[in-house]
Amino acid sequence: METAGRDERDDRDPRLETIASLGESAVLARVLPRLVSGDAALLGPGDDAAVLAAADGRYVVTTDLMVHGPDFRLAWSSPHDLGWKAAATNLTDVAAMGARPTALVVAIAAPPSTPVVVLEGIADGLRDGLERLAPGAGVVGGDLSASTVLTIAVTAFGDLEGRAPVLRSGARPGDTVAHAGDRGLAARGLRLLFDRATDASGEPDPVAAAHVRAEHPIEVAAQLAPAPPVAAGVAAALAGATAMLDVSDGLARDALRIAQASGVAIDFVGASLGGDPRLALAGAEDHGLLAAFPPGVALPEPFTVVGRVVAGEPAVLLDGVDVAAIGWDPYAGWDGRAG
Amino acid sequence: METAGRDERDDRDPRLETIASLGESAVLARVLPRLVSGDAALLGPGDDAAVLAAADGRYVVTTDLMVHGPDFRLAWSSPHDLGWKAAATNLTDVAAMGARPTALVVAIAAPPSTPVVVLEGIADGLRDGLERLAPGAGVVGGDLSASTVLTIAVTAFGDLEGRAPVLRSGARPGDTVAHAGDRGLAARGLRLLFDRATDASGEPDPVAAAHVRAEHPIEVAAQLAPAPPVAAGVAAALAGATAMLDVSDGLARDALRIAQASGVAIDFVGASLGGDPRLALAGAEDHGLLAAFPPGVALPEPFTVVGRVVAGEPAVLLDGVDVAAIGWDPYAGWDGRAG
Repeated sequence: METAGRDERDDRDPRLETIASLGESAVLARVLPRLVSGDAALLGPGDDAAVLAAADGRYVVTTDLMVHGPDFRLAWSSPHDLGWKAAATNLTDVAAMGARPTALVVAIAAPPSTPVVVLEGIADGLRDGLERLAPGAGVVGGDLSASTVLTIAVTAFGDLEGRAPVLRSGARPGDTVAHAGDRGLAARGLRLLFDRATDASGEPDPVAAAHVRAEHPIEVAAQLAPAPPVAAGVAAALAGATAMLDVSDGLARDALRIAQASGVAIDFVGASLGGDPRLALAGAEDHGLLAAFPPGVALPEPFTVVGRVVAGEPAVLLDGVDVAAIGWDPYAGWDGRAG
Repeated sequence: METAGRDERDDRDPRLETIASLGESAVLARVLPRLVSGDAALLGPGDDAAVLAAADGRYVVTTDLMVHGPDFRLAWSSPHDLGWKAAATNLTDVAAMGARPTALVVAIAAPPSTPVVVLEGIADGLRDGLERLAPGAGVVGGDLSASTVLTIAVTAFGDLEGRAPVLRSGARPGDTVAHAGDRGLAARGLRLLFDRATDASGEPDPVAAAHVRAEHPIEVAAQLAPAPPVAAGVAAALAGATAMLDVSDGLARDALRIAQASGVAIDFVGASLGGDPRLALAGAEDHGLLAAFPPGVALPEPFTVVGRVVAGEPAVLLDGVDVAAIGWDPYAGWDGRAG
């Protein structure tokens, strides 16, 4: 009341409230009720730390930072997209161990001028992403800091439920190689955005992005708010997967990681990869799961066979030919800027 | 060899190597060997996620972001300081629950032009801070991203070893209020830096900072590389502490948090707070532990009595008088810019 000049204007339109005008405590009071702590939280936000259940005496931990500019652009992604994607990418890393995701902690650094509705949108995206991809999981803690660059740091936790973790190093010659999730769709979405949602100087353009998203909702959503097959991680572990990882850098580069960790070669069947094997192998950020299974195992949904593990020096093959020798570099990545 | 021009120069002087010139994989190969995974790591870095032991079926989790500018300045802090402080502040939050710190995950966002020696220094500071403050704890995972602003996100884990967590809400009238750690020392260090290690335009000056640190090593180290009494957290829990928290915002502000959570008042004894009670109550970032103990309990080292819990509306008192009524605002904080 005493600072009526500034606060009254803010009161008239909540969209104008910023972190600076509202203050950290009031911001948290607006944001935290949008989140749930989830089933594993023995103690949620509000003390110096949270306490989580680990029924089998172990827990899975992974962490990841998303930074405005290199990792996302507010001209393309809505705040809801950011929260959703931050949840999805971390949940997939937990799933890739064969674990069930249980909880996240989320630390956000943002300019003081950031509208509070942006933080509310991020919280809503986190909540909705968790609800869709890992029901029962929640956000148990967080931190809000000031920075000139919007930055979202997520640490995710998972429960192995008594199982051994599925590592990258267990693939054996003869195993079936299977994949769950999109192949190249997120890269197609990113190319659409770079080609058609930037202005003359190459800067992201929000109006053009909205048009591209309306015309190509599936491709653009795969890039900005992916829905990876998180539940397939536990299903793969139960089916006996010998190796597994999250495909964040493209099928070829991530398959090479399994090959190197396991001391084997991975031979993809081109016909299993769709009409554009190059895109399928090199497109990044789909966050599917790539796994090896003992031969003859009935694959859990939605895994499909894409190749097999063969003996030999660590390498990635396409129909028996080393991909490094087929005239294009699948390890170089495939994004909107490189055809 | 083929890009001799740039790489040869880098090869001559490792101090010139940057994240961009070396590449993420090579940077991680340089940084990771400087860290240990610690006793709780069942699976350390290298897969999609780590796996940690939780012997009693629960684990404590806290997360915190440090951002260049608001939280630290490279003109004042060495990379080693940054790693040390990132460890120390998170370890204290774990300790404040009465838990033994077991591990950290660390996500760093840095400009591609950042010298690799900066990341090596941060890693060394993390390792040394853990070794000194929480022997047996280690770094089990991380992430390296690009940003225009150096940002360090740490998530820390702890083991309650079968005990109940010590919350903020358990203080009862009649309890002894005790504190372990520095009181106002970090704020004095920050004031020295603001007063004597900034240039004419107010920007941090590294040469002046080195001089100030040489003249006032204790105060400046308390600000830049604090050594909070982490082990005292478990000791307090074992002694029956009824409430506890990490004092990051000053004794008065943090005591008010216990008062509000517990529905009591905290009455500090001025004579117990040293020669400058105002500084002791308002100085931030000491990261000591403030706890309530049942009356008559033998306090574990290095806790000392600073007051008692009294019945009444949530408030902080100094010798029986509400601090809000003594002519200065201990909740406003005390830093180098406000005397």
